[in-house]
Amino acid sequence: MTRFSFDVHKTDGKARRGTITMQRGEIRTPAFMPVGTAATVKAMLPESVRQTGADIILGNTYHLMLRPGAERIAELGGLHQFMNWDRPILTDSGGFQVMSLAKLRKLTEEGVAFQSHIDGSRHMLTPERSIEIQRFLGSDIVMCFDECTPFPATYEQAKESKDLSMRWARRSREAFDSSAQQSGKSALFGIQQGSVFEDLREQSSKALADIGFDGYAVGGLAVGEGQEAMFSTLDFCAPMLPAEKPRYLMGVGKPDDIVGAVMRGIDMFDCVMPTRSGRTAQAFTWRGPINLRNARHKDDPRPLDPDVPSPATHYSRAYLHHLVRCEEILAPMLVTWHNIAFYQALMQRLRDAIEQGCLADFAAQFLETYRGGDIDPL
Amino acid sequence: MTRFSFDVHKTDGKARRGTITMQRGEIRTPAFMPVGTAATVKAMLPESVRQTGADIILGNTYHLMLRPGAERIAELGGLHQFMNWDRPILTDSGGFQVMSLAKLRKLTEEGVAFQSHIDGSRHMLTPERSIEIQRFLGSDIVMCFDECTPFPATYEQAKESKDLSMRWARRSREAFDSSAQQSGKSALFGIQQGSVFEDLREQSSKALADIGFDGYAVGGLAVGEGQEAMFSTLDFCAPMLPAEKPRYLMGVGKPDDIVGAVMRGIDMFDCVMPTRSGRTAQAFTWRGPINLRNARHKDDPRPLDPDVPSPATHYSRAYLHHLVRCEEILAPMLVTWHNIAFYQALMQRLRDAIEQGCLADFAAQFLETYRGGDIDPL
Ligand SMILES: [Zn+2]
Ligand SMILES: [Zn+2]
Repeated sequence: MTRFSFDVHKTDGKARRGTITMQRGEIRTPAFMPVGTAATVKAMLPESVRQTGADIILGNTYHLMLRPGAERIAELGGLHQFMNWDRPILTDSGGFQVMSLAKLRKLTEEGVAFQSHIDGSRHMLTPERSIEIQRFLGSDIVMCFDECTPFPATYEQAKESKDLSMRWARRSREAFDSSAQQSGKSALFGIQQGSVFEDLREQSSKALADIGFDGYAVGGLAVGEGQEAMFSTLDFCAPMLPAEKPRYLMGVGKPDDIVGAVMRGIDMFDCVMPTRSGRTAQAFTWRGPINLRNARHKDDPRPLDPDVPSPATHYSRAYLHHLVRCEEILAPMLVTWHNIAFYQALMQRLRDAIEQGCLADFAAQFLETYRGGDIDPL
Repeated sequence: MTRFSFDVHKTDGKARRGTITMQRGEIRTPAFMPVGTAATVKAMLPESVRQTGADIILGNTYHLMLRPGAERIAELGGLHQFMNWDRPILTDSGGFQVMSLAKLRKLTEEGVAFQSHIDGSRHMLTPERSIEIQRFLGSDIVMCFDECTPFPATYEQAKESKDLSMRWARRSREAFDSSAQQSGKSALFGIQQGSVFEDLREQSSKALADIGFDGYAVGGLAVGEGQEAMFSTLDFCAPMLPAEKPRYLMGVGKPDDIVGAVMRGIDMFDCVMPTRSGRTAQAFTWRGPINLRNARHKDDPRPLDPDVPSPATHYSRAYLHHLVRCEEILAPMLVTWHNIAFYQALMQRLRDAIEQGCLADFAAQFLETYRGGDIDPL
């Protein structure tokens, strides 16, 4: 059985329409991975996530190592069995979240010592431990342990941070290869760093390609630099990554971020936005995001968006508004489902547009409608 | 089309196996009605509620009149369309909740004036207004507006309260009959009161039968009197109600309450217990209720109860415990679904036992297992 392959069927400009094949299933690219932080895509059953068209989801090493613990999940048969999702799972390395969430962090050449934000317990994350945790979880796509360079960073800071990440990338590769169990079934992705500096991105790409990975992520973007800076960095940094491997833009993003990144050659995405927004009554539609808490929806019999296939289409905006006002659990259930369905429908339209060679037209039309605003009130 | 009929197929002792036929569907009795207070069975999609075997759900007049408002729901096509449930809905009259939830209540012969517990707005509930609200909602089974006699009550208090409820029952009947739209499609149930006093229950039954209703509820029980007093009251008060009409025990109850009440001739039930418990990590199993927050489940790979058909069977107790500890929305989603599935499975077993003429045996076995406690820890 194929451990990991990536086949590009069609390109349109820099954009690629591909398929990743792994033992647990195929991943159609460009792909959006819903985030399942604590072994659950919040407010959704895994069968509902799959029904929206998701081929792969993301799990968070930092959260799972703290609760319920990676060894416990291994004892219980691995993350797939634990959360009842039998298709591919990508796990991050914990590197980003240990720096943003943990307390009393201490970063050294060895790794990061820290205290849990939940109970103050002490832990250490190193490249070796991160890869081991991802093995305990049974991750299909394993990410190298790295430092996500903060923004803004001086050239010197960005270089130092990138160099550390490249040393950690080599240690991650060695740790991964040392387990036949892991390297025989899973894939390992490297992560490009270098902030917004072209030559640092170039150095990083070369270092990663020298080591060799199954796929390459762009790290250190979507950290506050803004869409314009992100796109202009992607313009040079994405083509540096090996064309025959999938490219993953970590933590991105808003629907228009994704469209722009696909046009710049990105194949994979993840973001908490559709799930998090589902819990704050923000719904994504083809005409842009709308806030269901707003009183304008109080008597509106129309659905959120008839062109987003999810159970939310069976309800009026008035009903969803009512659920939000009453703080009913069904509100995040329906809005999250709708949002994930919207993201997956967007990915399908992007894939179709690339296949038909009309991505630029699709993108222009999408953005015009998306920025055009909601339907008029009744 | 039949507006309302009740057919008893089989009896076993006092217990009855029947079918209520209405325009929106059949209701197999004994029936348990999940509670959908604010136009949602909390944490469940209506299609999931239906999948557990529920033929009918309950809506709350008090909550819906305050938020989003009965007239608004009528404008939006009625409660069925609003909440996407096309089968029968029974609505209570608001009488019980206005006395337990509202602020600054004033009860007179006319009705109850009160302030909303949500925003302090002033409202009045009378028999006429309650029936009108239930018409706006499009309720299939409409309940008379009554006063649920508090417990304990002296004989004098219970008599006065019961007499008021009987005068309100007549006014409810007249209000219901005055609308051809409502009386042509919906059913009206009277509510027996009289606390634990046999002659008052007798007087109440006669007064109700004189007026004539499609079904008869037992009110004023499950208000703190305890199971023993409830059963001994049911022993005399249930048989007083017309045998050819369904009997509904309001607000009951725990699984063993339901089994005992079915044996005493009750056909319909509602209770918030399975849904409320679903949000506090209490799960019902054939071996009794269990608390998923308890650390004993932390490493337990076994399902909650393999004999309760719901998606929760796809997960370990360890996973459910993890979700509860992380306060993940999926916890109430799965536990509520499981609990409603358990209640519906119990009703199915009760119906089967009556059909087979072995209800007493079933009840004895059920209680022995139910009180026997959870499976041993691993
Ligand atoms: Zn994001
Ligand atoms: Zn109850």
